[in-house]
Amino acid sequence: MKIAIYPGTFDPITYGHLDIIERASRLFDRIIITVAMNPTKEPLFSAQDRVFLIEQSISDIKNDGILEVETFHGLIVDFAHKKKASAIIRGLRAISDFEYELQMALMNRRLEADITTVFLMPHENYTYLNSTIVKEVASFGGDISNFVPPIVEAKLKKINSTK
Amino acid sequence: MKIAIYPGTFDPITYGHLDIIERASRLFDRIIITVAMNPTKEPLFSAQDRVFLIEQSISDIKNDGILEVETFHGLIVDFAHKKKASAIIRGLRAISDFEYELQMALMNRRLEADITTVFLMPHENYTYLNSTIVKEVASFGGDISNFVPPIVEAKLKKINSTK
Amino acid sequence: MKIAIYPGTFDPITYGHLDIIERASRLFDRIIITVAMNPTKEPLFSAQDRVFLIEQSISDIKNDGILEVETFHGLIVDFAHKKKASAIIRGLRAISDFEYELQMALMNRRLEADITTVFLMPHENYTYLNSTIVKEVASFGGDISNFVPPIVEAKLKKINSTK
Amino acid sequence: MKIAIYPGTFDPITYGHLDIIERASRLFDRIIITVAMNPTKEPLFSAQDRVFLIEQSISDIKNDGILEVETFHGLIVDFAHKKKASAIIRGLRAISDFEYELQMALMNRRLEADITTVFLMPHENYTYLNSTIVKEVASFGGDISNFVPPIVEAKLKKINSTK
Amino acid sequence: MKIAIYPGTFDPITYGHLDIIERASRLFDRIIITVAMNPTKEPLFSAQDRVFLIEQSISDIKNDGILEVETFHGLIVDFAHKKKASAIIRGLRAISDFEYELQMALMNRRLEADITTVFLMPHENYTYLNSTIVKEVASFGGDISNFVPPIVEAKLKKINSTK
Amino acid sequence: MKIAIYPGTFDPITYGHLDIIERASRLFDRIIITVAMNPTKEPLFSAQDRVFLIEQSISDIKNDGILEVETFHGLIVDFAHKKKASAIIRGLRAISDFEYELQMALMNRRLEADITTVFLMPHENYTYLNSTIVKEVASFGGDISNFVPPIVEAKLKKINSTK
Repeated sequence: MKIAIYPGTFDPITYGHLDIIERASRLFDRIIITVAMNPTKEPLFSAQDRVFLIEQSISDIKNDGILEVETFHGLIVDFAHKKKASAIIRGLRAISDFEYELQMALMNRRLEADITTVFLMPHENYTYLNSTIVKEVASFGGDISNFVPPIVEAKLKKINSTK
Repeated sequence: MKIAIYPGTFDPITYGHLDIIERASRLFDRIIITVAMNPTKEPLFSAQDRVFLIEQSISDIKNDGILEVETFHGLIVDFAHKKKASAIIRGLRAISDFEYELQMALMNRRLEADITTVFLMPHENYTYLNSTIVKEVASFGGDISNFVPPIVEAKLKKINSTK
Repeated sequence: MKIAIYPGTFDPITYGHLDIIERASRLFDRIIITVAMNPTKEPLFSAQDRVFLIEQSISDIKNDGILEVETFHGLIVDFAHKKKASAIIRGLRAISDFEYELQMALMNRRLEADITTVFLMPHENYTYLNSTIVKEVASFGGDISNFVPPIVEAKLKKINSTK
Repeated sequence: MKIAIYPGTFDPITYGHLDIIERASRLFDRIIITVAMNPTKEPLFSAQDRVFLIEQSISDIKNDGILEVETFHGLIVDFAHKKKASAIIRGLRAISDFEYELQMALMNRRLEADITTVFLMPHENYTYLNSTIVKEVASFGGDISNFVPPIVEAKLKKINSTK
Repeated sequence: MKIAIYPGTFDPITYGHLDIIERASRLFDRIIITVAMNPTKEPLFSAQDRVFLIEQSISDIKNDGILEVETFHGLIVDFAHKKKASAIIRGLRAISDFEYELQMALMNRRLEADITTVFLMPHENYTYLNSTIVKEVASFGGDISNFVPPIVEAKLKKINSTK
Repeated sequence: MKIAIYPGTFDPITYGHLDIIERASRLFDRIIITVAMNPTKEPLFSAQDRVFLIEQSISDIKNDGILEVETFHGLIVDFAHKKKASAIIRGLRAISDFEYELQMALMNRRLEADITTVFLMPHENYTYLNSTIVKEVASFGGDISNFVPPIVEAKLKKINSTK
């Protein structure tokens, strides 16, 4: 059985992430979507909320037990090893991603040679999409329905209306 | 069964390619290494020789029927479709690769939505390695034993000695 | 009156070019689409054919005398100067474009300080699109109807069927 | 009448910005220089000071009512729409600019399809110039007279002398 | 006598830095490793500790008075000028480095035309290495013995055990 | 004595090359400008002419026996080794340069560990300059006096007038 983890901050999940998940689900037998609890970044959504939004958003992907969601703290290769994963999935959109992702992939390979970083490219329509820009557009009342699932959109609207 | 194709010119195969093949062989159940017969590029080695050098070079990778080698002409997505492959494997080394590979991955996705391009990064020691530079170094009598398997090295030496 | 030239090889025109032309037509009063007759590149289509395909393709853009098509040979800044153009329009898709385009824009500014290079980005759906890749896909019988206007598609099919 | 906005932080305005403004003023009938009041970045100069420094600095550009300066808060496309602008002007210096600018241009196009982002390149002498580096050099007492207008230089000197 | 400075934060020194120092020591007669005391960044190690770790780490490089370590505050070109240095040494690993380094090199050339920035590339094995990633791996208990000298490793372990 | 080689095609030498030479001459005791006789590229100028144009062009750089010009065929590291050079000098202008230069520097380091590649950046005014673009502008009768020394300009004019 080929197991992969898909780590990220997912603050919040976007259609770009979902596109990666949908495609990865055809390549692996089990995918653990791993919500990073990085203490140095202050996310907008709590880890619990981020997990909940992912779980709601992936319910449409046909998914006979392939997808799981977990939180995680520590070295990603240690987590992958514990889960018997052979791959770490990463989305690649742009040059700036590429630099950092290359660096992390080489570092992770050095730390744990048996785990391979696998890069997937999201659909061209999500080239410009990331969680930060979605939050910024939402904070100014812009329409984000093309970028995130309805449940995420509703949650962001609620946050901004109470500011 | 998860099938992947790994297309390329392989003129000739290097340790960088072998590193990608070795890692991909842990992620897929079957990998078809696909030697492109592109009429617009004039390769140094014939398609037949390139297949032979790959077959000799992969014999060390533990391989219970996972790896195959074939030649190919036409659209890569048509070939992948015919082979029931769900993935196209590509190595990513550098920014210039990245640009072109992104373009091809998006084009191939548009042509055949069910096939996913999967990018793997070779070991840091092969960052600078490609077939062209190996052929150039060999043509000046430089030592290429760190870059290609012995059988490829021998073949390149023979070609250069008869020039 | 603000006049711009939009130079290129257009071998052949794609939906990416048309997207740039459509957007540029809202910014300038007159746009001269300029087909480069560069002697060092051997185009698939003759200059006359390329002009014809552009003229047919732009007939859908609402265009009260804004758009014109001409061939051109020599220094692009000399042509722009002769036409009293204040701007040279260029599409920017990718990093590799960017490098070369920056270089040309700085060179052209040095040669003719009064003419400004203006960069526009095509729609995200055309990020991966260029004339070369369209010709390659067409030569293998792939479907190019999403990439070029019907008249260009027909012309490419005819060329490939007679090869 | 072709209207464009040129948004930025302008903290403070540099000769690089002025070069873009000067060139844009030949392409459009009216340009609204738009000082972003982004609450997440803490600028060195107040919005009021930034507007004042721009107004003083542009007085040399021959300008029969073409240039205006305004502050702005919210989504840039909403502001552009309200001002009946057909273009958003952005300066492009480097690859890192390019990535972010591409992302913003695609996002803004999605949010407001009628507004086009137009990229201009500053003069080669301002390739390395941005407001942050100017503030850093000034804070160490370095000579910044080649990078900003005299009024900005004086203001920065005053700030650093009172620290 | 050819004097160079090698400025950086060195928070802490890594094998990547040491590789650059070792190679630079063959090109110059005297190299002043310059620890930046930048007030806007909060380093993990004090300037005094960073100097100490560098001094301990360079003791293995054969070094007949070529290498020195100093702290520094202000404009790097002023420091270089005071030290009669003709060169500033910088390591180049990646595109993102390249952008920033190009900008700084052009700025420094403008500020002090007689001082040349010299770029060296670290060994391929240190392509992915920087002080930040080492600190992150160490904070999660990962093995960093391949990335930093033993004395730095010990110091990082001690810091993390007392957190 | 610190010896460096500065290899290139120099077809023909430009002010960008001269800027690199001028700066390198302050860092090394002896610099061998090395004209590559690469059989796969067809240069406009013969190797003999390229050497002559370099020799004429460097006569203005104050140069007490520091600069020499030689032709070269084979592996650059072999040539450097024969000349007892400790450094290979390369100019870095742009991202596309950077990729290729990184690859060559790592390859050369692997082939000959004792020789270090040293990268210098040309003056900002030569960012966009290379021999190919100069030849193209000259072939269309454009003014190239800002880009190459008078003797090179004269030679290019003569070539184009006899075409």
